[in-house]
Amino acid sequence: MGLTVTQKIIQEHLVSGEMKAGEEIGIKVDHTLVQDATGTMAFLQFEAMGISQVKTEKSMIYVDHNTLQTGFESPDDHVFLQDVASNIGVIYSRPGNGICHQVNLERFAEPGKTLLGADSHTPTAGGVGMLAIGVGGLDVAVAMGGGPFYLTMPKIINIKLTGQLSPWASAKDIVLEVLKRLSVKGGLKAVLEYSGDGVKTLSVPERATITNMGAETGATSSLFPSDEITREFLKAQDREEAWKPLSEDEDAVYDQELVIPLNELQPLAACPHSPDHVKTVQELAGMKINQVVIGSCTNSSYLDLMKAAQILKGKKVDPDVSLVLACGSRQVFQMLADNGSLAEIIRSGARVLECACGPCIGMGQSPKSAGVSLRTINRNFKGRTGTKDAQVYLVSPETAAVSAITGVITDPAGMGEPVSVALPERFAVDDSMFIFPAFDQREIRRGPNIKALPVQEEMADDLQGEVLLKVGDNITTDQIMPAGAKILPLRSNIPAMAEHVFEPVDPTFPGRAKEKGGGIILGGDNYGQGSSREHAALAPMYLGVKAVIAKSMARIHGDNLVNFGIVPLLLADPKIYETIAQGDQLDVKGMKAAVENGAEELNVRNLTSGKEFSVKLLLTARQRKILSGGGTLNWMKKQNR
Amino acid sequence: MGLTVTQKIIQEHLVSGEMKAGEEIGIKVDHTLVQDATGTMAFLQFEAMGISQVKTEKSMIYVDHNTLQTGFESPDDHVFLQDVASNIGVIYSRPGNGICHQVNLERFAEPGKTLLGADSHTPTAGGVGMLAIGVGGLDVAVAMGGGPFYLTMPKIINIKLTGQLSPWASAKDIVLEVLKRLSVKGGLKAVLEYSGDGVKTLSVPERATITNMGAETGATSSLFPSDEITREFLKAQDREEAWKPLSEDEDAVYDQELVIPLNELQPLAACPHSPDHVKTVQELAGMKINQVVIGSCTNSSYLDLMKAAQILKGKKVDPDVSLVLACGSRQVFQMLADNGSLAEIIRSGARVLECACGPCIGMGQSPKSAGVSLRTINRNFKGRTGTKDAQVYLVSPETAAVSAITGVITDPAGMGEPVSVALPERFAVDDSMFIFPAFDQREIRRGPNIKALPVQEEMADDLQGEVLLKVGDNITTDQIMPAGAKILPLRSNIPAMAEHVFEPVDPTFPGRAKEKGGGIILGGDNYGQGSSREHAALAPMYLGVKAVIAKSMARIHGDNLVNFGIVPLLLADPKIYETIAQGDQLDVKGMKAAVENGAEELNVRNLTSGKEFSVKLLLTARQRKILSGGGTLNWMKKQNR
Repeated sequence: MGLTVTQKIIQEHLVSGEMKAGEEIGIKVDHTLVQDATGTMAFLQFEAMGISQVKTEKSMIYVDHNTLQTGFESPDDHVFLQDVASNIGVIYSRPGNGICHQVNLERFAEPGKTLLGADSHTPTAGGVGMLAIGVGGLDVAVAMGGGPFYLTMPKIINIKLTGQLSPWASAKDIVLEVLKRLSVKGGLKAVLEYSGDGVKTLSVPERATITNMGAETGATSSLFPSDEITREFLKAQDREEAWKPLSEDEDAVYDQELVIPLNELQPLAACPHSPDHVKTVQELAGMKINQVVIGSCTNSSYLDLMKAAQILKGKKVDPDVSLVLACGSRQVFQMLADNGSLAEIIRSGARVLECACGPCIGMGQSPKSAGVSLRTINRNFKGRTGTKDAQVYLVSPETAAVSAITGVITDPAGMGEPVSVALPERFAVDDSMFIFPAFDQREIRRGPNIKALPVQEEMADDLQGEVLLKVGDNITTDQIMPAGAKILPLRSNIPAMAEHVFEPVDPTFPGRAKEKGGGIILGGDNYGQGSSREHAALAPMYLGVKAVIAKSMARIHGDNLVNFGIVPLLLADPKIYETIAQGDQLDVKGMKAAVENGAEELNVRNLTSGKEFSVKLLLTARQRKILSGGGTLNWMKKQNR
Repeated sequence: MGLTVTQKIIQEHLVSGEMKAGEEIGIKVDHTLVQDATGTMAFLQFEAMGISQVKTEKSMIYVDHNTLQTGFESPDDHVFLQDVASNIGVIYSRPGNGICHQVNLERFAEPGKTLLGADSHTPTAGGVGMLAIGVGGLDVAVAMGGGPFYLTMPKIINIKLTGQLSPWASAKDIVLEVLKRLSVKGGLKAVLEYSGDGVKTLSVPERATITNMGAETGATSSLFPSDEITREFLKAQDREEAWKPLSEDEDAVYDQELVIPLNELQPLAACPHSPDHVKTVQELAGMKINQVVIGSCTNSSYLDLMKAAQILKGKKVDPDVSLVLACGSRQVFQMLADNGSLAEIIRSGARVLECACGPCIGMGQSPKSAGVSLRTINRNFKGRTGTKDAQVYLVSPETAAVSAITGVITDPAGMGEPVSVALPERFAVDDSMFIFPAFDQREIRRGPNIKALPVQEEMADDLQGEVLLKVGDNITTDQIMPAGAKILPLRSNIPAMAEHVFEPVDPTFPGRAKEKGGGIILGGDNYGQGSSREHAALAPMYLGVKAVIAKSMARIHGDNLVNFGIVPLLLADPKIYETIAQGDQLDVKGMKAAVENGAEELNVRNLTSGKEFSVKLLLTARQRKILSGGGTLNWMKKQNR
């Protein structure tokens, strides 16, 4: 039987388990990446494991999240990361060098290899045929130490692209179409693997836009084959030697197939407040807008910015619109400065921000109250911009740039001659903003915001506790552990972070959790979607949360819960959800024994209502060991003893 | 008797009083400016006066302070300002267009005219021979309504520049020398007027650096003559028609004279934590630095940035240094993008920020804990960067750029061939980021952070209250009412702002003030130096502060206190300061009567210690009326009835 690209890469990296969908497998990790918001914890965890140097081929730390520096916290984190990186052998990408996924694609991503990244958009590297998976920082710390990455063997969804995009439709519209069809849950436990004759019409940056935003379907990863186009891209990055061809076998078998005829696509937009609320730009045309944001790891490549520059050239931004723009990397910024496009962008009246994540993660450029913001980013969750009632539409750079000029949502298709940008034969390669490790055993500068790691206790025999909070469907990690300009700089300080857990949902939560000595969270469907942030498990753990019961759960978040010793439980019958109220006292007798002996179903008594119900405990043998020992860090320490 | 330049301008604008140092005079205001952090209050105050349109020649609002937008507050302020500006006839400079003083110098400043600005660095316009004075927003609101500006006729300090700067010494070093000689109090109640043959060796941007930072001496303004160099500058800005020659009479008489032989100057630095702690860069050479900031209204002109670009060209920023850089205006940014210098800056590894005040006001780019930061800005008050224990050194762009490369404080004089930059024959003039008023009576968009103006009650007959806080010398308005990334966005919301009054000095102050129902502040020498911010009077007024007693007081702050109905009192004998403790109950019988009948000395009983002492009430007749009526706004309303 033939193999898919995903299966080929997994097969070559398999260290344990069987390549059967649903089975737990362990794979060797070639590269890792963290960014500054996840990296401080990952580095602290790596330190706690007592390993002196990373054992991967390449490990990177990118400073791209906390670059506003509205206090000492973030710059302290930066020097901490720089020092640790130098000692343990990690490449440090300085602030200003750009967004991890864009820079990584340019400089380090390799076809056929594996990448584990502490950021949910790590699959961006799938644009060059790298199997790249977003996880929590702790999983990355383990991989940095040479440990395999364990995951459930994903099913493979084949997305077959046929034909060619019509002018003005763009890669962003392809992935929005995928989201429209699959929804924010459709990719769970799957890899989205692209094939078809449409693939060869797409450049690497376009492919990377698609694999990047595949994360919004909940997919484990997204992957393109590696072909001559990949080779040309790597060559233009002075990295042709990293290339190897990679495609599915002719008789490869997929678990599911989706066909997208590219020529039928028109410009699309994801409407508030979910990336799968997709409409055509045509349907929204004429809506007055307040802000346009061009940038983020989804659409900030040379190609994206050059398109925007061409559209803006000779035009002026509407007086009622604030257009903010940030290149995804210093390479892109440099090339636009060198070829005159940056000058055209400035001339149009755009506000040019530093190369960083910025507005996408609510790190500045919040829109006005109830403001309509058109963004080329990947997420439009409520409140993520920093403005609670902002209305965010996710669009392509073309739609964004055209609308910035007209002041209303505008279908670029009506705007005359489409722009056309060719990739350069050689990108402006300059690695001087990386600091390569010196292994100099330097003293680590550790600012006062960098607090010691909280560690979970061993699991108790029985689980007893109050339902501290009952939430609805599709709760994001942004809602569990908000980011944004005010909270993100606290990432190295769990006690301070914990004060903000569930803030957008119920700001009284941290106080209640502490008062009650911890308890249980009740979630709906797709609990924990969105960012990979392990802080959405770590901070609740610090507050004493012992278990999350939900109808269904996002993969990365479920894994993070296990990593931090919180039991992820699924309602056997989703209807039971209605019978449980916030404040109910729940009791699970023999919890620890059940975890240890492999039980897959458990009985829960609702002491308040008197009802009983079943929950599923779908864990691998390895996860059970971790959980009963109080989380991965405790488990790793025991193993290293 | 001949006249100085200052006297000539005042004479032409005099509407009341006599041009005798120490007398209160009223002058006609030709132009006004506010920025977004002072503008919302000024506009609310203008609205409260019930006047429909501004009566000045030109009034401007520049959005340059709150541009990070870490929440809905700032963007809401921006649209509020845009709407009001359009209705009342104010030119709105959009975010991204640059820093008020730099943009104003380029596009609107005119020799021989008067400018009143709600920002302490308004005297920047003195670089083209405009008499430009920084005040609180309320004074600007009054001027916008056509009211004169009242001030004490300043004495004129002549600063005579002789010879020519040696290579590598720069305009910044001239003003640092002025600060070294005069100290942060030496300019109080004075205008610093420049003359001598050295003047003609200085371009307008260089002159503007000097007049800008003259504010740090406490001066009312700083002024250069208007000459052929001024004409060339205005011509290059397409504004030659605004030029007129202006120089002192040969027999002009000054109150004080200072001679600075330019050729003797070497690169200087103001050391932590005061702009007058000046040493030579030579003395500091070799000190390791963590950050370099190039920008702010002091040093962000085309000339400054081009010098930095030339130094950085072909070099790389030291790996342990974060170099951040922001152009002062979109014009500068555009020109650097057009001529390739921006590309060189990016190539060096600099982090390029939006054209705005940014790091200078603690709006981002805080240094690491205890970090050493070299900045081309104008103030290095403790904590102003957002990092309490940061060590900030104020230097020229040349010293900053050279040190960014070496990683240690470095005297540029040792670095070979000095850079030389010529001003262009024509600047890149493009006014498309201004929105000129439409007088369209549009509906004002008023976000939830824009709260109604608090209004002072009428003065009570007697002043009784507790000394709520006793502070030392040189307390800055930054300490009274901190700015920075977390607080500045609250400027339109006095109840929220008030929670931060005196936060760096004593965070328990707001609680105590509210608990005690208000009271009195006891200050040392030079109380209220620094920023013009009226919020340092308005927010304490909201907390019930009735009087400030100090050894001496900064001009703008004293005026602001009067504007908001707080009585500024000076200790007749400074030694009494030692006998008063925080918590003492003070009693001033007949306060209101004394204010009204012109008494200049008052008796204070310290009920706690039993001691009595005298305070001086040095107010003009006009100020007495304002004070007894509960502040300017109440007084204006009464007059408009």
